[in-house]
This record gives sequence, C-alpha cells and structure tokens, in this order.
Amino acid sequence: MRINDNFLELEDNYLFSTIAKKVANYQKNNPDKKIIKLGIGDVTRPIVPKVVEAIKKASDEMGTEEGFRGYGPEQGYDFLRNTIVKNDYKDLNIEPDEIFVSDGAKCDCGNIVDIIGNDNKIAITNPVYPVYLDTNIMAGRKGNIIYLPVLEENNFVPELPKEKVDIIYLCFPNNPTGTGITKNDLKKFVDYARENKSIILYDAAYEAYITEENIPHSIYEIEGAKEVAIEFKSYSKTAGFTGLRCAYVVIPKCLKGYKENGEEVALNPLWNRRTCTKFNGVSYVTQKGAEATYSEEGREQIEENIKYYKENARIIKEGLEDAGYTTFGGVNSPYVWLKLPEGVKSWDFFDKLLTEANVVGTPGVGFGPSGEGYFRLTGFGTKENTLEAIERIKSMKK
Amino acid sequence: MRINDNFLELEDNYLFSTIAKKVANYQKNNPDKKIIKLGIGDVTRPIVPKVVEAIKKASDEMGTEEGFRGYGPEQGYDFLRNTIVKNDYKDLNIEPDEIFVSDGAKCDCGNIVDIIGNDNKIAITNPVYPVYLDTNIMAGRKGNIIYLPVLEENNFVPELPKEKVDIIYLCFPNNPTGTGITKNDLKKFVDYARENKSIILYDAAYEAYITEENIPHSIYEIEGAKEVAIEFKSYSKTAGFTGLRCAYVVIPKCLKGYKENGEEVALNPLWNRRTCTKFNGVSYVTQKGAEATYSEEGREQIEENIKYYKENARIIKEGLEDAGYTTFGGVNSPYVWLKLPEGVKSWDFFDKLLTEANVVGTPGVGFGPSGEGYFRLTGFGTKENTLEAIERIKSMKK
Repeated sequence: MRINDNFLELEDNYLFSTIAKKVANYQKNNPDKKIIKLGIGDVTRPIVPKVVEAIKKASDEMGTEEGFRGYGPEQGYDFLRNTIVKNDYKDLNIEPDEIFVSDGAKCDCGNIVDIIGNDNKIAITNPVYPVYLDTNIMAGRKGNIIYLPVLEENNFVPELPKEKVDIIYLCFPNNPTGTGITKNDLKKFVDYARENKSIILYDAAYEAYITEENIPHSIYEIEGAKEVAIEFKSYSKTAGFTGLRCAYVVIPKCLKGYKENGEEVALNPLWNRRTCTKFNGVSYVTQKGAEATYSEEGREQIEENIKYYKENARIIKEGLEDAGYTTFGGVNSPYVWLKLPEGVKSWDFFDKLLTEANVVGTPGVGFGPSGEGYFRLTGFGTKENTLEAIERIKSMKK
Repeated sequence: MRINDNFLELEDNYLFSTIAKKVANYQKNNPDKKIIKLGIGDVTRPIVPKVVEAIKKASDEMGTEEGFRGYGPEQGYDFLRNTIVKNDYKDLNIEPDEIFVSDGAKCDCGNIVDIIGNDNKIAITNPVYPVYLDTNIMAGRKGNIIYLPVLEENNFVPELPKEKVDIIYLCFPNNPTGTGITKNDLKKFVDYARENKSIILYDAAYEAYITEENIPHSIYEIEGAKEVAIEFKSYSKTAGFTGLRCAYVVIPKCLKGYKENGEEVALNPLWNRRTCTKFNGVSYVTQKGAEATYSEEGREQIEENIKYYKENARIIKEGLEDAGYTTFGGVNSPYVWLKLPEGVKSWDFFDKLLTEANVVGTPGVGFGPSGEGYFRLTGFGTKENTLEAIERIKSMKK
C-alpha cells in the first residue's frame, strides 16, 4: 500500500512536545523548583455546576428505556442548534440548519479541507495556529499557500493578499497574538472575498474574551459576510469544554463554491454530506451540557470563569509593562503577546524564563517565522500562579 | 473557491432517508397502523447502570478543581488504552500505543483515507456499509475501486481479488449480511495481503455478537495479521454507545506502507500525526464510561443486552424460516439476511412488507448491486415488537 506522501512534507517539530521535553528535563535536574506553566492554551477552571448537572441528568436519561437515545442527527440535535441560533446569532439571520455541531473546532478546521478542491490558492496568517497549515499540507497543498504576516508593523491586522487567493484563514481574537480585529478592518477582507469569489474560514474560538465595542463577535456582523464566510466556534475556551469536546461550524446556505466547469455549488449541502458520511454526531450527553451554558445560571457561571481568565491576562499584561516590556493582546483575548527586547530570539527567551524565573511560556517562532522575537503567555492559569509568575519575571534580569 | 469535485461523483441516494420518507408517507395515509421498525442498525436498550454511574462520577470530577481535566491525550487516556489491551487483546501482543481511541468507528473508517495515497487499488465487498465506498469517492478514488461480491454462491465469503489490490476492506461479522468468517477463510486474506504488500482494513464492530467457536473476534488472532491489518472496534453495538460515541482503531507498529520511492513507512506514526493534527481526543467523561464496560459488573450488564438482541435475531431467523423463507446470518450477528423469493426485488419487498405487515426493514440493494434480491432485518428492536413483526410476516401472503 502506498502512503499519502504529503504527510512527509510536514515539519517534524511539535512545538508543544519540544516545550514539554525541555520543561521535564529542567525539572529533573532541579527537582526543588516550582515551575509555573503559562504556555499551553488549555483552561484550568472546573466545569460549572449547571453544566455538570445537565450532563448527569442526560446520563440518567440514557439509562432509562424512555430516555435512551441512540444515533442522534449527525449535524447536532435541534435543541442545541436552535439554542445556538437564538443566543449566538441573535439578529444575524443565521438558521439552525446552517449550524453543524461537532466535537471540536480543531476537528472542524481540519476536516473542512475535505470539501475544498486541490487547486485553490490559500492565504494563512503568520504566526498562526498550526492546524490550518498542517491540514492543507496533508491534503497536498503545500505549494498553494501564501502567508499574510501579522506584525507590530501592521498593527497585527494582516494586509489584503497582493495576489488573488481563493481561501483565507483568519482567527480573531487572534491565536497566538491575542489581538482583535475591528469591524472596519474585517470588512476589508469580506469585500476582498466578495470581489474575488474567495471564502474566508473564520476561527472565532476566542470571541467570548472580547471586551471592546468595535470588535465583532462573529464575522456575520459584517455586511455581506454570509455569502463568503464559514465561521468556527467552540465551547472549549468559552465554557471550559477542552476535555468534554463540543464546538460548531456555521455554513450559510447562500455560501457558494465553484465546480471545475465554473458552475456554482452550495457549500452547506457538501458539508452536510461530508458530515453524514464521516461523522456520527456529538454525544447527546455532551450536547445537553453545551445547551446548559445558555441557561441564565449557566451563562452567569461561565462568565465568572471568563472574567477570571481575563483578570489573569490583565495581571500578565500590566505586570510585564511595569517591568518595561512591550506587550500586545490580552484585552480581547486570554493571550498576551510579549515583544522581546531587540535581538532576543524566542527560544532563547524561553530558556531564560524557564531557568531564571521557572515560568513556562510559548516561543512566538513556534507559530511561524513571523513570530520570531515574540513570546506568548496565557491567562488560563490560576490567579495565584499568575501573580507569582509575574513577580518572578519582574525580578528577573531583563 | 473551487470545491472538491469528487463529491459530485457520490450517489445522491441516501438509503435510510429514502426509507424514512416512504415510512412517513405510509404512516400519514394510515395513521391507525402501528409500524414496527427493524430497519436501521441502531440499538434500543438503555445504557447499563455501571456505565451511567461512571459517567456521572467523571462529570462530578470535572466539576472540581482537583478533578478537572482539560485537553486529554489525542490518542485516548492511558487508563482506557491499557484496559482495552488487557481485555480485548489478551494474548494477542497488541500494545497500548497501538490503540487510538476515537468518537466512532464510522469516523475512523472515514478518516483513515487521509493517510492513504491516491494511487492505490482498493477492494470493497458488495453489498457493503456505504462509508468505505463514499469516503474513497470523496478522496477522488472512484476509478481505483474493485468489488468483491459477497453472495450465497460463495457462502458469503468474498473470493480473493483476481488482480493485485493494495487495500482490502473487510467487515466481519458482516454488515449487512450478518455472516461470519472462519479463521481459515480470513487467513487466506491475510496471506494474500502479505504476498501483495496490501493492507486489510478490518471492521470488527459486531464481534461481540459472535457465538461460534471458529469465528475470530479480532483479525490479530490470525498469524501474520499484525503486519498487514488495521482493526476498527466500537462500543456502539457492544455497549449501546451509538448516542455516546466511543470507538477505537488498532494500528500495529510493525504495519508498513510505502513511499513513492518504494521505501517503507510505519503507519502508526502517520496515523498519530493525523490524530494530533485533526482530532482532540474523546471526552474524558465518555472514556470513563467506556472503561466501565470492562468492569465485572459492567461486562455482565452489557452482555445481558447483547444476549437480548441475539435472542431477537434468533426469533427473526427462526420465524422467517418457519414461514418458508431462506435466511443467512443472525447467528454471529444481530443482522438477519433474508433471501427473497425468486424474482422478487428488494424495494418491492420493502413496499409489500410496509403495507401488508407494517414492518420496516432494509432493502439489500441499498447496500450495493450484489444485495439485490435480499433484505436485512435487525435484532435491535424490543422483544415484543420483534415477536409481533414475525407473526405479521408469517400471516402475510408470501
């Protein structure tokens, strides 16, 4: 059997496993040091009571003859799709059958490549969440990718592609830079996509962290976006579902791609076919948990956690600035993007921070070459650890 | 944006949605009739108490600071991988890192095409579970597929491919025919694969229904299979997890494919890379539920359900034979494969059964042309309904 040779084109270097090895090695040689991890983008607060209650209730139901549910709809139960539309897309004219419930935005971002033709030109921001790039390389599209740098110089808003591209991946609030995009700036991309018959793949996994007014929570707040954008949303960072697995993708029915012969094809039924053939829906129990995040109590409880992480991000950002560093992000995002002093490389700062302050962060260059000279810290730790980490960084020689 | 034109090569006809429409239409015109559904392969018994208990306990854990778990290992938690190896692969030399826990065998069977090169020749049995075929068509391999008929004439064991093939999909106990394969017959395929450097994709989702001695529960019971076979297993039909979503795939480390230049490449790390890039693991709560199926009490409880469905299959098989029909399967499987009287077409029998006996089954031809003249009934209903359905079929004019 012949393998898919495209896999051999992937970089062999797993960012987070390299970090884990370095940390383990340091801890082994310094067993007395208390290391604080502000590296990986995983949440730490427990699942809120209202969600736990809903999951337990659904499990009990599944244990009864009347309440048992076997295969659910591949696209998600109506109770959740309707709730999503009513809450997350109020006044945005999204319909329930434009929502596809899944087991994670990572899966959705990866699987979406299935319905995309191989000849498309693809624009990916840089630095970037590695999944967009790697899944396209696996599908044999390494040669079709152009990069849009996201830098201090452009205020962390990528410039429009100079050549015509067919697909544009955007993630705002951005991972890893923690920066938002204004409605005006996002409109430029929507207009570009409309002019060029391109599609925007919009990853809004961090929208719950938005605090500023002019930053859109959904790309569909931008006029004309429904005809050109797919949106990815997740309960992971919103409600701490990283270990429970629930997300959704929005594919408006008016969104079209093109056949080889130039005819239009609606993407919603294509994705529906993909979903019915390669997926069997999310656990009923999990979907009941996701639904509970929209109840009044559930919403209050998850907002409490988001506030907690945002406060951590504020502590990091202000602490670093007090210590004389320049930072970006951290206002509409749990991520703070630290600009390293002139000439300092991301991995060198990683080593210095680990050995001198016993704090773990993520080297910016791990997200792509344009991340060199930057460093990501996350607000997902505990408040106590975050405060201590900042004190240690402050007392570290710069 | 250009779509993946291969999607347009798929048959437009969804078997189960056509059935659902016909049934809804009949019920609308005959609201007083009580229709019994023995069509879809979905379970009906509630989740067993031991599993419900484990899921609720895990949910409670997730609600505490100490017990909360965020992202788990993409490949599954060690507690489950170790338990699988100890129980399902006792004495078969499978190691925990050869097990990849997933959210469904349908997903695994579909996603496996990602690591496979496009030039392979693929053999698929016929009639067949549609996912093997459709996922390859989506990947642009429609022209690479040959069919191996599974018929009364060959005792429902496909003949070895006459031309060299690179990949062979096998499902035993078989869906839809409900027939098993003996160790001797399966060994012929393993030997073929070894000689031809092919890979067998072995779907063992129904192994829990095996009653006969010489029918293997795993392909790895066959000497030499580890070097040539990937095995798919699921908790869906074993423990009623169709609505909870948990399965696993086994990819032995010694299993190799080939690069374009002829060099060997191990498939386990390729699949691991695919898993880490496009998947984020199964819910901790669900994995705890799956683990509970292996406890002494859990095992007794799920075996009770399997016995219940098997008894239904026996009732169907014996009832149909009493009524003068010829049947296959139903002994090592929940599925009974009914041979229709000479010249009767599958869809005509479907209509007759629906209107004269108010019983729903699945037309054999819906699983592929070699299923014409056959009909599938499943043991997954309630015992009462199964008994009544058989009485109705018996009194129906043949």
